[in-house]
Amino acid sequence: MNIEIINIGDELLIGQVVNTNASWMGEQLSLSGFKVQQFTIIGDTREQILDALWKAGERCEVVLISGGIGPTKDDITKTTLCDFFGTRLVFNEEAYKDVESVFARRGYQVTELNRQQAYLPEDCTGIPNKLGTARGMWFEKDIPVPGRKGKTVYVSMPGVPFEMQAMMKEYIIPELKKRFHPKSIYHKTIMTQGIGESFLATLIEEWENNLPPAIRLAYLPQPGIVRLRLTGTGDDETEILDLVEKQADKLSLLISEYIFGEDDDRLEAIVGKLLLEKNCSLGTAESCTGGYIAHLLTSVPGSSAYYKGSIIAYDNGIKEQMLGIMPETIDEYGAVSSEVATEMAIGAQTNLNVDYVIAVSGIAGPDGGTKEKPIGTTWIAIATPEEVFSKQFLFGDSRDRNIRRAALQALNMLRKSLL
Amino acid sequence: MNIEIINIGDELLIGQVVNTNASWMGEQLSLSGFKVQQFTIIGDTREQILDALWKAGERCEVVLISGGIGPTKDDITKTTLCDFFGTRLVFNEEAYKDVESVFARRGYQVTELNRQQAYLPEDCTGIPNKLGTARGMWFEKDIPVPGRKGKTVYVSMPGVPFEMQAMMKEYIIPELKKRFHPKSIYHKTIMTQGIGESFLATLIEEWENNLPPAIRLAYLPQPGIVRLRLTGTGDDETEILDLVEKQADKLSLLISEYIFGEDDDRLEAIVGKLLLEKNCSLGTAESCTGGYIAHLLTSVPGSSAYYKGSIIAYDNGIKEQMLGIMPETIDEYGAVSSEVATEMAIGAQTNLNVDYVIAVSGIAGPDGGTKEKPIGTTWIAIATPEEVFSKQFLFGDSRDRNIRRAALQALNMLRKSLL
Repeated sequence: MNIEIINIGDELLIGQVVNTNASWMGEQLSLSGFKVQQFTIIGDTREQILDALWKAGERCEVVLISGGIGPTKDDITKTTLCDFFGTRLVFNEEAYKDVESVFARRGYQVTELNRQQAYLPEDCTGIPNKLGTARGMWFEKDIPVPGRKGKTVYVSMPGVPFEMQAMMKEYIIPELKKRFHPKSIYHKTIMTQGIGESFLATLIEEWENNLPPAIRLAYLPQPGIVRLRLTGTGDDETEILDLVEKQADKLSLLISEYIFGEDDDRLEAIVGKLLLEKNCSLGTAESCTGGYIAHLLTSVPGSSAYYKGSIIAYDNGIKEQMLGIMPETIDEYGAVSSEVATEMAIGAQTNLNVDYVIAVSGIAGPDGGTKEKPIGTTWIAIATPEEVFSKQFLFGDSRDRNIRRAALQALNMLRKSLL
Repeated sequence: MNIEIINIGDELLIGQVVNTNASWMGEQLSLSGFKVQQFTIIGDTREQILDALWKAGERCEVVLISGGIGPTKDDITKTTLCDFFGTRLVFNEEAYKDVESVFARRGYQVTELNRQQAYLPEDCTGIPNKLGTARGMWFEKDIPVPGRKGKTVYVSMPGVPFEMQAMMKEYIIPELKKRFHPKSIYHKTIMTQGIGESFLATLIEEWENNLPPAIRLAYLPQPGIVRLRLTGTGDDETEILDLVEKQADKLSLLISEYIFGEDDDRLEAIVGKLLLEKNCSLGTAESCTGGYIAHLLTSVPGSSAYYKGSIIAYDNGIKEQMLGIMPETIDEYGAVSSEVATEMAIGAQTNLNVDYVIAVSGIAGPDGGTKEKPIGTTWIAIATPEEVFSKQFLFGDSRDRNIRRAALQALNMLRKSLL
């Protein structure tokens, strides 16, 4: 059984609103073992809605629709649904009572616009909306598709995210499970840092070629990070979980030095957990990353338990005054050098009174590059209670991405030294 | 002329990645005067791709495709495109040179997987990719649709956002404009800070109700900022520009105290320009914003000309040691107080040796709130060469949004004091 999601709304097509409804629905459905085959996003005109309803029904056994049924006048979805299903709008007492009670809770009178929300297509099952005034509607229709058994299911929901989400969780997904008994599905994502997509692919080529057909692999790159997602599908839940986990273990052995976590793990949170376990504190000394590492670390709730602070020494004078770098070191080796990064790490360790330090000095661009030190040249130093070490990297030529890649690389170097 | 956007990628359908590509493309195209009719999001199987290509071509004269053409093996888009357009993959010397030069810049050897990126469909116009290895492909095909004049345009792009965005801006949108001559459209965005959407709406209600029909207004809220976008559409470019500018002037008078710029203006860049004009330097002292203000400031190319650095004093010990805050001040007033924010600003001004300082101390959450100082309580102090002043704000209960709102509010306070 395949599902198509239709989202209705001009605001989506002109990019005014990012379509988080579709991704939320896709995620929840796939976690429940359903296969979402397509998202279709259209404007709110009768022709587009009718075209999308027909084509979706031909492709999929279940069509979930969100948007276009709010209380404003430009909503024509409900009348178009009536035409498509050959039914008409009738006043629904029960739905009206729901609207009244929502308004009473907010201390408002029901307006005429909202009274119209109680008109529902005669031939549908209403789905209560505890959080708003527009009911969900569950329709069934014969769509002539070779091999299709039974009627095609269409469900229409409001576009307001929390109203849609409540309906999906409490009514629609449970109902779909009862009716379609989905296959077991299991996802596992391996998070890697410090290696590009094509190099990863070369390292794991043989393993990938020998994957059993029940498992698929996807590469999901972001600046500085590549996620590898394994998806297993089958009839037996335990079997498919075992199969995916076994393959994930094999994969992990091949690229262990690049793996920092799995699924929703974030480097800044992993580093924090390790510091808490060791009861150690962290500080940073940033030049080219300009506070981005501090920002990532402090975006984690509770980070004040281990993260003490940073000296952002964008200016060489501050490197000297606040981090105790010798002016001769900068003169002799340049601000972007192993020597300066190392002195930054040591200076911060002393002045911030912390156990560990991440120090970064580099050329983010677009200016400042030379032949010897092109844009993207970055030195990262890590100070631990035992030692200080540094490493040079050559990132790319985009300022934003250089900042992000340097920050993630630095966090991963710290993670490794904490292990 | 209508446009359909096809995004290919299982990661979109299972909700692992939110489809920001579609909304970015929709926004840019509609800003250029084009009408986007539909987004179609599909998985990377041959059948789905072929089905989507046919149906999109029947609906729209232009079909823009992103995703599915990276260097890894799960990409089958390119061979499916060949089948659809009745052509075959051939090795393209020019494309190979591009791949080589991207790799040479990064200091890498070209792998076999990346060599395959130089195989392109014979019957397409290649679109150079300065930021990656996968070329764009411009195809044209006769699609039998009553009333359609000329061939239908299909353009395939990589799914990596910045690669796709560069191709759209530099090549595809200009090419579409040359060919289809869209209606004149003129946008003007007024950037506001420090006031919520519904309060703005009340202030400008009368003006909004009297807008001429050729002009539309959109509210585009982000944490801390509301953008007001005026869009005029018409046949005469000069006329529509005048009309929009006149309305923008009227609007500006109504809400002048909240406006910090227009169109793509960013507060962090505006502040930088003002500092350069005054030949003054800036430092920051951050507690709850944890480096986010420094990150915003240093994300502006060339910011090292005025931004010297920051002391991120997440820990009270660092507030005392690096910023010279008296322990008694923290004991008496608490770290989130006018007194501490003021002392932070003065301490940073002295220690970083700068003309201006932004200092922030607040409770970002989720922990640390009290009855007297709930989560979101934030003190911002600004030190100028003449004075120090501070102000209290009460933001919301989301950590991420509190950090962002505090940072933007602080930058706007500095901007006003620089004027």
